[in-house]
Amino acid sequence: MRILGVDPGLTRCGLGTIDTAGGRRVSLVDMRVVRSAAELAPHKRLLLIAEGLDEVLDTFHPDVVAVERVFAQSNVRSVTGTAQVAGIVMLAAARRHLALGMHTPSEVKAAVTGSGRADKKQVQIMVQRILGLTELPRPADAADSLAIAITQAWRGGAASLHAEPDRAQHGGAGSLPRAVGGDLTPAQKIWASAERMSRRHGAVAPKN
Amino acid sequence: MRILGVDPGLTRCGLGTIDTAGGRRVSLVDMRVVRSAAELAPHKRLLLIAEGLDEVLDTFHPDVVAVERVFAQSNVRSVTGTAQVAGIVMLAAARRHLALGMHTPSEVKAAVTGSGRADKKQVQIMVQRILGLTELPRPADAADSLAIAITQAWRGGAASLHAEPDRAQHGGAGSLPRAVGGDLTPAQKIWASAERMSRRHGAVAPKN
Repeated sequence: MRILGVDPGLTRCGLGTIDTAGGRRVSLVDMRVVRSAAELAPHKRLLLIAEGLDEVLDTFHPDVVAVERVFAQSNVRSVTGTAQVAGIVMLAAARRHLALGMHTPSEVKAAVTGSGRADKKQVQIMVQRILGLTELPRPADAADSLAIAITQAWRGGAASLHAEPDRAQHGGAGSLPRAVGGDLTPAQKIWASAERMSRRHGAVAPKN
Repeated sequence: MRILGVDPGLTRCGLGTIDTAGGRRVSLVDMRVVRSAAELAPHKRLLLIAEGLDEVLDTFHPDVVAVERVFAQSNVRSVTGTAQVAGIVMLAAARRHLALGMHTPSEVKAAVTGSGRADKKQVQIMVQRILGLTELPRPADAADSLAIAITQAWRGGAASLHAEPDRAQHGGAGSLPRAVGGDLTPAQKIWASAERMSRRHGAVAPKN
């Protein structure tokens, strides 16, 4: 199954695509950030993001789209822009009949680092290890989009277009139990070891 | 010039279309509310709203789209949904190369009632009078969308697709000076009289 993870934003929108192969095995397909300048008219900004999104959807044909669930926090203006981008991503998924998953930032951090309060650096490091990348995924928005896609692969819970959002499960991956040791694949072992490291240190030095 | 005003919302999205004929003269073209049930998957809800919006755009071909500018207030969840809908409306305007205007709720209330703190009933009454309708526009979301369109007609300030949002003016209506007496058209007299009434009373009894 192929998953597109989206870290929605008007200035930078992270788009990370991964493949899952059962269990915790995931691999990188594509990672990019679409940008729009703050000086542009607001609907022009959304159009640029939508065009970048369409390009990814047309090129990689994901089965599921996973988006960060937006909450109003400190900066109201940026939250509004973020929610606008999330809206166009959700609509694009619906128009293509794709299942949609939504995950809060703390769910994503917890899924990939073991801590819901991990910082951006920790997320980058864990995404690098989980996907077996030779360097840190940059910028942070791109790493976040991959983390969202990984969370979708591991936690499942995507709603199909006609299902109720909370009960529905996507037909593919579904919610996999979290690895707790035992019969781990090599990738799972890397993940489990990195997870322990990220719990021990505030920030872990990258492998290479 | 034809203006589509949008009161964005996931549960009810008001879509009000008016024509302007210079000065303060405006007339009703269409008024409708698109709904989506809370039980549906979130992207399905946005799809239903987008389809209703497309129908209006394809049928009435507005020159400008005016949307309520969303702010995070008390209910974070509904603000997020509102911003998502605003995002898809803004994108639809961009995809059709339409100018976009955005107005805060208090700007809209001030434009049509003379008070930025008017209640929904006052807005309904003033929209009825300004457009010369035989009955109150219902539901309130529909009246609000017409009030947003009227605000756009009177205040102007729509950004074209390639302009900076704050400096750009739409080529058509532009910002008209507010009527302050003197040579008023019949419609302006109705507006001025109704504005005085709405200032005097918390809620004014409808004409008929």
